[in-house]
Amino acid sequence: MEISCTVIGNVEQRDGCRIVLQAPYKHGLKGLAGFGHLQVVWFADQAGNAGSAFTVIPKPYAKGPEQIGVFATRSPYRPNSLCISTACVVDVDEEQGILQLGYIDAEDGTPVLDIKPYHGSEDRVREYKTPVWCAHWPQWIEDSEHFSWEEEFLF
Amino acid sequence: MEISCTVIGNVEQRDGCRIVLQAPYKHGLKGLAGFGHLQVVWFADQAGNAGSAFTVIPKPYAKGPEQIGVFATRSPYRPNSLCISTACVVDVDEEQGILQLGYIDAEDGTPVLDIKPYHGSEDRVREYKTPVWCAHWPQWIEDSEHFSWEEEFLF
Repeated sequence: MEISCTVIGNVEQRDGCRIVLQAPYKHGLKGLAGFGHLQVVWFADQAGNAGSAFTVIPKPYAKGPEQIGVFATRSPYRPNSLCISTACVVDVDEEQGILQLGYIDAEDGTPVLDIKPYHGSEDRVREYKTPVWCAHWPQWIEDSEHFSWEEEFLF
Repeated sequence: MEISCTVIGNVEQRDGCRIVLQAPYKHGLKGLAGFGHLQVVWFADQAGNAGSAFTVIPKPYAKGPEQIGVFATRSPYRPNSLCISTACVVDVDEEQGILQLGYIDAEDGTPVLDIKPYHGSEDRVREYKTPVWCAHWPQWIEDSEHFSWEEEFLF
């Protein structure tokens, strides 16, 4: 069964990171300025094999297992190539339909499918658990920027 | 522009909460058992006006503004009716393609589009901010269960 999603806007990686919404969606930003962070649902159309049917990946993580299922990774190579990024809100311009973000790990032009406010009550797990191979990764998104990610990924 | 997504499985709300994957995707669960929580991307097909084109909602929150944009809410009434739930992993059965969850706020039969592991480095914001009208909401997902949500929503 297939579900059709409409692209509501695109990522722009020129004047910093921003999302430019299509005109019919711009008023959906009303009230978002009060949030410090949001979740962006985007479609990794530039990831090469977008929408790939494979479900097991050979050793993507340097310290991880020899094989891992796609649903245990955050790789864009996954059945629907949907990605979720938590991003810092810098500015919200409802009239222009432009959302300035601190950072988002998506290519220029990437289609955006949804934007949601970040709530502690829904998104913040006090006691989370990860496998041993990634237990040394940062515990907070704020600390991710200064972590040596290049030692963790094999591709 | 439209993007087509394939349904990878469905939520079952019978023997507790679980996701039953379609056979081709079951090995995508390999390695997920080491995670305490995951994110589920689901399609709110039973939400009534799924895929609605409206972008501003009249006062959905008792203590919130008179009007709020859909992208500042977590309502399933949104352009693509995509929802993201952070859920506790109870059991992973790769051979059967069944994922037992602690709880997920999705109806029985709901189509699932993606599953991702929850990482502190990507999903856990130390210093997050919300508007005043919801600043009293729980700061952690673990505290949400015991909060009086019925006083917060008008519908």
